[in-house]
Amino acid sequence: MNFEYSDKVVKLQKKLNQFMEEVVFPNEKTYHKQMEQAENRWVSPPIMEEMKGKAKAAGLWNLFLEDPEYGAGLTNLEYAPLCEIMGRSPIAPEVFNCHGPNAPNIEMLVLYGTEEQKEKWLPQLLNGEILSCFSMTEPRVASSDALNIETSIIRDGDQYVINGRKWWSSGAASPNCKFAIVLGKSSTSGERHKQHSMVIVPLDTPGVKIIRTTPVFGYDRAPIGHAEIEFENVRVPVTNILVGEGEGFAIAQGRLGPARIQHCMRSIGTSERALEIICQRSMERVTFGKPLSEQGVVREWIANSRIDIEQARLLVLKAAYMIDKVGNKAAKKEIAMIKVAVPNMSTKVLDRAIQILGGAGVTDDFPIAHMWTHERGLRIYDGPDEVHRATIAKWELKDYL
Amino acid sequence: MNFEYSDKVVKLQKKLNQFMEEVVFPNEKTYHKQMEQAENRWVSPPIMEEMKGKAKAAGLWNLFLEDPEYGAGLTNLEYAPLCEIMGRSPIAPEVFNCHGPNAPNIEMLVLYGTEEQKEKWLPQLLNGEILSCFSMTEPRVASSDALNIETSIIRDGDQYVINGRKWWSSGAASPNCKFAIVLGKSSTSGERHKQHSMVIVPLDTPGVKIIRTTPVFGYDRAPIGHAEIEFENVRVPVTNILVGEGEGFAIAQGRLGPARIQHCMRSIGTSERALEIICQRSMERVTFGKPLSEQGVVREWIANSRIDIEQARLLVLKAAYMIDKVGNKAAKKEIAMIKVAVPNMSTKVLDRAIQILGGAGVTDDFPIAHMWTHERGLRIYDGPDEVHRATIAKWELKDYL
Amino acid sequence: MNFEYSDKVVKLQKKLNQFMEEVVFPNEKTYHKQMEQAENRWVSPPIMEEMKGKAKAAGLWNLFLEDPEYGAGLTNLEYAPLCEIMGRSPIAPEVFNCHGPNAPNIEMLVLYGTEEQKEKWLPQLLNGEILSCFSMTEPRVASSDALNIETSIIRDGDQYVINGRKWWSSGAASPNCKFAIVLGKSSTSGERHKQHSMVIVPLDTPGVKIIRTTPVFGYDRAPIGHAEIEFENVRVPVTNILVGEGEGFAIAQGRLGPARIQHCMRSIGTSERALEIICQRSMERVTFGKPLSEQGVVREWIANSRIDIEQARLLVLKAAYMIDKVGNKAAKKEIAMIKVAVPNMSTKVLDRAIQILGGAGVTDDFPIAHMWTHERGLRIYDGPDEVHRATIAKWELKDYL
Amino acid sequence: MNFEYSDKVVKLQKKLNQFMEEVVFPNEKTYHKQMEQAENRWVSPPIMEEMKGKAKAAGLWNLFLEDPEYGAGLTNLEYAPLCEIMGRSPIAPEVFNCHGPNAPNIEMLVLYGTEEQKEKWLPQLLNGEILSCFSMTEPRVASSDALNIETSIIRDGDQYVINGRKWWSSGAASPNCKFAIVLGKSSTSGERHKQHSMVIVPLDTPGVKIIRTTPVFGYDRAPIGHAEIEFENVRVPVTNILVGEGEGFAIAQGRLGPARIQHCMRSIGTSERALEIICQRSMERVTFGKPLSEQGVVREWIANSRIDIEQARLLVLKAAYMIDKVGNKAAKKEIAMIKVAVPNMSTKVLDRAIQILGGAGVTDDFPIAHMWTHERGLRIYDGPDEVHRATIAKWELKDYL
Repeated sequence: MNFEYSDKVVKLQKKLNQFMEEVVFPNEKTYHKQMEQAENRWVSPPIMEEMKGKAKAAGLWNLFLEDPEYGAGLTNLEYAPLCEIMGRSPIAPEVFNCHGPNAPNIEMLVLYGTEEQKEKWLPQLLNGEILSCFSMTEPRVASSDALNIETSIIRDGDQYVINGRKWWSSGAASPNCKFAIVLGKSSTSGERHKQHSMVIVPLDTPGVKIIRTTPVFGYDRAPIGHAEIEFENVRVPVTNILVGEGEGFAIAQGRLGPARIQHCMRSIGTSERALEIICQRSMERVTFGKPLSEQGVVREWIANSRIDIEQARLLVLKAAYMIDKVGNKAAKKEIAMIKVAVPNMSTKVLDRAIQILGGAGVTDDFPIAHMWTHERGLRIYDGPDEVHRATIAKWELKDYL
Repeated sequence: MNFEYSDKVVKLQKKLNQFMEEVVFPNEKTYHKQMEQAENRWVSPPIMEEMKGKAKAAGLWNLFLEDPEYGAGLTNLEYAPLCEIMGRSPIAPEVFNCHGPNAPNIEMLVLYGTEEQKEKWLPQLLNGEILSCFSMTEPRVASSDALNIETSIIRDGDQYVINGRKWWSSGAASPNCKFAIVLGKSSTSGERHKQHSMVIVPLDTPGVKIIRTTPVFGYDRAPIGHAEIEFENVRVPVTNILVGEGEGFAIAQGRLGPARIQHCMRSIGTSERALEIICQRSMERVTFGKPLSEQGVVREWIANSRIDIEQARLLVLKAAYMIDKVGNKAAKKEIAMIKVAVPNMSTKVLDRAIQILGGAGVTDDFPIAHMWTHERGLRIYDGPDEVHRATIAKWELKDYL
Repeated sequence: MNFEYSDKVVKLQKKLNQFMEEVVFPNEKTYHKQMEQAENRWVSPPIMEEMKGKAKAAGLWNLFLEDPEYGAGLTNLEYAPLCEIMGRSPIAPEVFNCHGPNAPNIEMLVLYGTEEQKEKWLPQLLNGEILSCFSMTEPRVASSDALNIETSIIRDGDQYVINGRKWWSSGAASPNCKFAIVLGKSSTSGERHKQHSMVIVPLDTPGVKIIRTTPVFGYDRAPIGHAEIEFENVRVPVTNILVGEGEGFAIAQGRLGPARIQHCMRSIGTSERALEIICQRSMERVTFGKPLSEQGVVREWIANSRIDIEQARLLVLKAAYMIDKVGNKAAKKEIAMIKVAVPNMSTKVLDRAIQILGGAGVTDDFPIAHMWTHERGLRIYDGPDEVHRATIAKWELKDYL
Repeated sequence: MNFEYSDKVVKLQKKLNQFMEEVVFPNEKTYHKQMEQAENRWVSPPIMEEMKGKAKAAGLWNLFLEDPEYGAGLTNLEYAPLCEIMGRSPIAPEVFNCHGPNAPNIEMLVLYGTEEQKEKWLPQLLNGEILSCFSMTEPRVASSDALNIETSIIRDGDQYVINGRKWWSSGAASPNCKFAIVLGKSSTSGERHKQHSMVIVPLDTPGVKIIRTTPVFGYDRAPIGHAEIEFENVRVPVTNILVGEGEGFAIAQGRLGPARIQHCMRSIGTSERALEIICQRSMERVTFGKPLSEQGVVREWIANSRIDIEQARLLVLKAAYMIDKVGNKAAKKEIAMIKVAVPNMSTKVLDRAIQILGGAGVTDDFPIAHMWTHERGLRIYDGPDEVHRATIAKWELKDYL
């Protein structure tokens, strides 16, 4: 394993850190103020567009794309430390057009889209003009077992007819969100992992209905948010399919590895921000005659946070390294491990930050409360911890059969 | 120790449980819908007034008051199990006029108010017509060390002049909230625990300014909420003082014991509701061919939740029993212990419920996410865990001096 | 629930505490020295016999026996606090003839023995002259699933023929151990919980062979210890059966409740002793310019230990109260809960004590290391935590069927 | 960071693994049997000498020495994975002459010894003929604060006179142990970290008295063990000093980094062995109709163990890499972090193994119980976790001053 950051990466880290200091952090409050006063919370506020312009100008745009034709051409290991930096502010990923679900959707289109599909959607997506969403999870079944998925994608002549209910379709509540990539069952027979397909569904197609958005611990998470969508006899041309019928799971699998590296490294960045706040705040805040930072319990939190973050980062870098070297499939155990390890770590560090901040820790005076809710969600999204742990154990036990 | 519930209590438990089943639970969704559609989120919705009427009619009103002249005349040990039942729904305490900060404020007035003060405020409070708030915590200092408090209450002739900034003044954002009980420093010399006083400040007094409300993990917690208030040269007659100058801490101490029993028992009820949801949901939800309730990890959560809840409840009952038998002061260690033990337990049980519910666990489709944020707050309000643990240890070590 | 200790109990507590201070604690070192120098580690050293004599004289003998004909006639709730006191020293239970496996074996004989069996064995047992052992667990199968038990007890005319291998037969290595109560399968057909029987097997019966003793984390735990026994064509008269064929599980079940109360309360006492040592030692030991007791982390340990012990004790008392009031069967959930809760608590408290003591914590200069190994074992003996948690969950879920 | 193992290392790993499989593991039981039957437990049994011969012949000897003149010439990063392999068996490190305290003592002599000192001691040490011990910790003070050390080393003409009591002097109980390196105070004035010195004290010097050995949770840990030594007016020539007066702490510091890498990597190997046993045993052991490996809770343990081990190993490798690249001093935070992280991890993994093994887990039928006691000790030796956490926090907070 070689985790050494190349010169290219070190330069980008420096540039990105500088941009965060100069542009992103100073505008966090403005962003929130504009959001509070917004007429429509589902459109990014003006300051976001301004920051996006600056990021483009600075060459810090679409950094996630491994394909140099479209993006920065960075490997997973190279992009990982940049992701960490973006994770230091909840508003940063969008600034660099590196936010979910846009980024992974763009990756899927680049990897699996037809020329027609790419031409139609990529330019606007790459330019940060439109949003797209990913519709996989369903409210009526435990989607951690993907075989439970009930939405149907049935061929009828030159069209696919889609019926089903999806939620956690992040971004769909925005008027800028133009299409969904929908995972559904195109067949009920044959091999169980070959029954699913993915199709592109423009959101203005008749039969698509945004039901509501679901909050996360009280946050609507606008302007992206999480929409619940009803698909009722929705018809799209058969050319909207990705790769082909029965390829849904295979594509989802390919999307998974890099997406996990990205959100895990953002969680590392989030944790670093929390630790920074713990340190700063505990040095300022005085109780019983001395700063909190001189309390033994606080020192224990700081040390444990540092230890936990370091270990988690190394594991994510290892997973990124492996995806680059041996591919998603061979790295599957590491990919599952970071899914479990990282949000469990970050929620712990954030919890300590909340406790240090006292009353302020649960409000929005600091980004900590919001960050916690997001990281807590990550222990569920894309399968709860327990499902991933069961899988890791299964693989581990295989060596002893 | 005798925790046996008397016949009177058993009857009230039964009646209250029935009321919860028939009136409160069925109206939880209505309540939330009315809140969502409310023009003013800081006024309780019509369904609340309706339920309050029913509770009064059923004789389930002001149960918390130990003084039989004003309320049910129950001891702490007797009221505790009723509190547990109310804790099963976040909207229940208000239904029975037993919610914070009203209930503890009423108790303070009954115990420490002058006849004039009682006459002026008690009837409306007892009737559930108005709200009051309690202004203690300050945003600029770590209030867990009460000596940090900066708000001044200075006598000037027949008036007290109040200057300072308070937050976490729950209820003050409501137009129905008519007065605050404010804790501040009336002297800067003399014994350190005799420098503080409490005064009643009508919220329409010139100089009182509601700055904002602070959310708790994204929830505004309307219609009660948590207000930040500026007191700028606010003048009230000297007759508004409670007991006398320098008595602020003593009163706060007296308020504390019963208030803790109450919120801890509500947390026990909250935990029971969470365990109920874990059991029900895990039996319905099927993954990988069997209900979640047959997964070993889920069974472990259920068992540990049951064990944790049982132990915590017994400790709260012991504290209640001791307050009744030997008083707040002699029970101070137990009172501190439940402050630490209970919310740490309830957040753990709720966390398991979130994980069982999956995506639904972080939304408002179940009361769990909201409950979690409240219980998490309790680890901070009124002093963070760490301060209480330090105190418990100090008392423990005293035996070895 | 009424946990109030009666006057009788309060007097016994006082007397027992005094005896511990005057006789047991001062002789702990002597005991260990005599053990170290003993020619035969499997016989109690002279100081033990001396202390036993004093306990008898003081009327602190066979306190565990509920039957007033044979013992103190205390209920489970009454005996529990006395057990706690004995748990403060690893050598104390034998001093009062209240140690396992003698005490539970005596209870079984009193409850289920024939007159002949009682006459033969009880006087010597009650007088503390002989030991007996209980042979249930088997080395070749996971005995937590009792149905796995393989030892056979087959009737052949007027005799039972016993074949099988048992371990964890505590006490059997001592020359004073005169008989084993052996659980085995007397039938392989019929209802699965009615296939087992218990027989009394004198250890001098041909075919009984003590194979070895097994250490617990390096401790041989002499003079009681844990023996592994081979039973090869061992023949005993049919009159040696307890109650009758197929009654083995029912008897084991009856033995269980009170035995758990006893070892759990001893664990509470052990934890109290550990907390005492934490407090004393941390006040004496100075590092970096102040006593350990002024370190925040140590204070947190002290507070958490106090909180954990209090809750656990209340749960054990509740279980004891329930056994007395509604019987073993109705109290089964509580009995299972304390089996899980208590040793998990005590090992945590002891672990903190080890950490406070530093190097001395893992040696025998303090009783802590030894106590830890015993408490850790309790998480396994009589079924590991996980089996009990699964059972508790099963009972909990039943309410939702 | 580049953790890639070089070809040289990969070859050594392979060779070492093969040796473990062919020589070490098959002789574990023989070793223990010979130890049990040994007349003198403080001399290694014959099988050890036999294995040492084979290791020498195989070129697997003194692998730890970075100096190619004396040993394998491996960097810390190169030696680390070999240490992991040795950690899989408690008896392995001695087989390869890589065991503490010999290995770190040899390193100190190579780095800091005079030619005369080297000539006198190194050949026998390098050849595995004699043992040496390291005397630092003292029974009367909390040695985690090194300034507490009381042993005096006072110059008197051409001699140093040593007075003091040391314990945890591992190896000194063996007749093969020929000298101690003793840390003591050579001055009571001047800079506080320049008052200590190290001297070589042959154990046959008059005034050296082995008082006793201290067990670790009941294990005497023979033949190495942990001796308590009294030094009473012990006189050695001034040429026995290492480097010079006042250099004691500086030398100890230099010894520390590599020693930690080594014991931490052995702990990783220990944890891997435990996980292996968990997997194997859980697949064989059947309860309630299925193997333990199909129980969800067991699968969770396996997954968490794998996740925890991976993260810990990466952190140790990072620390090793840093020591090699930037030196002990710049790597001090990482060195402190692994001291805390690794034994906390390994004790958790071993605890799960104990629980899986049931009764066998606390006995010596598996190496797990013994391993646990050693790893638990590591949380104390060389300073308890809490001291290291406090230091890590101090360094972390420095960035915010």
